[in-house]
Amino acid sequence: MSAGRIVINHATVRETADMVAFARLCAERGLDTVSIWGSEIDKVGEKAARAALEETGLKVSGYNRVGPFEPQFLDRARFELERAARFGADHVLVFTGGLASGDRDLAACRRRHEDVIGSLLDLARDVGITLALEPLHPMLVGDRTTLASLSHANALCDALGEGVGIVIDVHHVWWDERLGAEIARAGQARRIVGYHVNDWLVPTRHLLRDRGMMGDGVIDLAGVTRMVRDAGFAGPIEVEIFSDDWARRSAAEVIDLSIARCAAIFGGALAA
Amino acid sequence: MSAGRIVINHATVRETADMVAFARLCAERGLDTVSIWGSEIDKVGEKAARAALEETGLKVSGYNRVGPFEPQFLDRARFELERAARFGADHVLVFTGGLASGDRDLAACRRRHEDVIGSLLDLARDVGITLALEPLHPMLVGDRTTLASLSHANALCDALGEGVGIVIDVHHVWWDERLGAEIARAGQARRIVGYHVNDWLVPTRHLLRDRGMMGDGVIDLAGVTRMVRDAGFAGPIEVEIFSDDWARRSAAEVIDLSIARCAAIFGGALAA
Repeated sequence: MSAGRIVINHATVRETADMVAFARLCAERGLDTVSIWGSEIDKVGEKAARAALEETGLKVSGYNRVGPFEPQFLDRARFELERAARFGADHVLVFTGGLASGDRDLAACRRRHEDVIGSLLDLARDVGITLALEPLHPMLVGDRTTLASLSHANALCDALGEGVGIVIDVHHVWWDERLGAEIARAGQARRIVGYHVNDWLVPTRHLLRDRGMMGDGVIDLAGVTRMVRDAGFAGPIEVEIFSDDWARRSAAEVIDLSIARCAAIFGGALAA
Repeated sequence: MSAGRIVINHATVRETADMVAFARLCAERGLDTVSIWGSEIDKVGEKAARAALEETGLKVSGYNRVGPFEPQFLDRARFELERAARFGADHVLVFTGGLASGDRDLAACRRRHEDVIGSLLDLARDVGITLALEPLHPMLVGDRTTLASLSHANALCDALGEGVGIVIDVHHVWWDERLGAEIARAGQARRIVGYHVNDWLVPTRHLLRDRGMMGDGVIDLAGVTRMVRDAGFAGPIEVEIFSDDWARRSAAEVIDLSIARCAAIFGGALAA
């Protein structure tokens, strides 16, 4: 197994490992790439965070994130995009946020957010970094996103042109009857820039913090991965688990189990 | 305000009022129609349940439900459909259920469920009652449904022909960027047979039992109702709230508040 094709997203273990510890744990296990968070860089300082990556030779896949889209958001966004570029990130995740307090006009909010993404793309092109649209689960519409389907993300990318791509997270899109068609469509346009795995637990006890470890839930992970590979995405498989349960375990244990589960479930697809 | 255009779904108050008490509470408030549950009929017995409706003159809109689709399900389904007909129900809600334990092939499960709905429709035509497909929220795919969008419900109705309609519940579909288009499509085909209201709370703390009272959440209820009316649906507005919080209050209080909120939010749309 080429562990190098697995990326751990720092959010998976951030409760028990700061960014420096996280980088060392990944490097010790032969991983060559990580996905990182601006909020975690803030905690250790940019100097220490960059030193940790240089010392370990780790590359950066996803940088989280720009958003939510609040007033004066674009000033902060430029800072995040430039910092992502300093870390050599492959792409920056866009997080729209949801409806403002008291607002119930979702369609209008969605249109405003689409306009903001357009402005953000201008900034990202300036900085020379790819924007990544990640449709979130429909249960997160309201407070966390207005972008809740691959169809919407694909349509938005069609409209926006170069410099924007899509991150597919199984947790958010696995339920969709259009899944195969929309993954194929994204692949056709060569716009898949990331692929996140975890699992959907039955029952799921919390809308945000009850994702499962790969294999513990009901998602056909091998099947979805086949769709993503068949669509031409050759990048790494990224583990992103937001979970109160897994957050309590040691980072080393969670990373080791993630790698073992990926090897068992994805096998050859890891080395695509 | 014509309270007669409001229907309370018994599930909203079933923790504190059995079917007999529920019927009396609704009739006392001038409502002329209710939506009922086979499981609640079982608790008081069919004789008492029918007597309560006859005594109050209440009609039945929705009968819940046929499903989940388990082995030998069709035998039970015939019983439910015949009982719904005895209660003079306008339509019977279809509840597919989710993946069987250990099954991860959602696409195949969906196809099987579509076939079962086809068989169910044959039964329903025999009995002379309308089947109602109600797409549930995508967060309920896995354990409770494989039908999670209005688009899918519309496509299925297109394929099935006469005798099947759609129930639109705001909680399940409000997030969808295709909402307006799919409501219009359902209206065009004259297949909307029910319209359920409640609200989406921010935060929502439980996937099943944390729906809000109309006005307490972020759904543009007046706006969605306009879409439904513009699509030609002239039936009643049905209150269906699954909520641990509201289940603790007295049935009378919940029904009174539901009627007051409907009057305030829907106004003229109640009498469409």
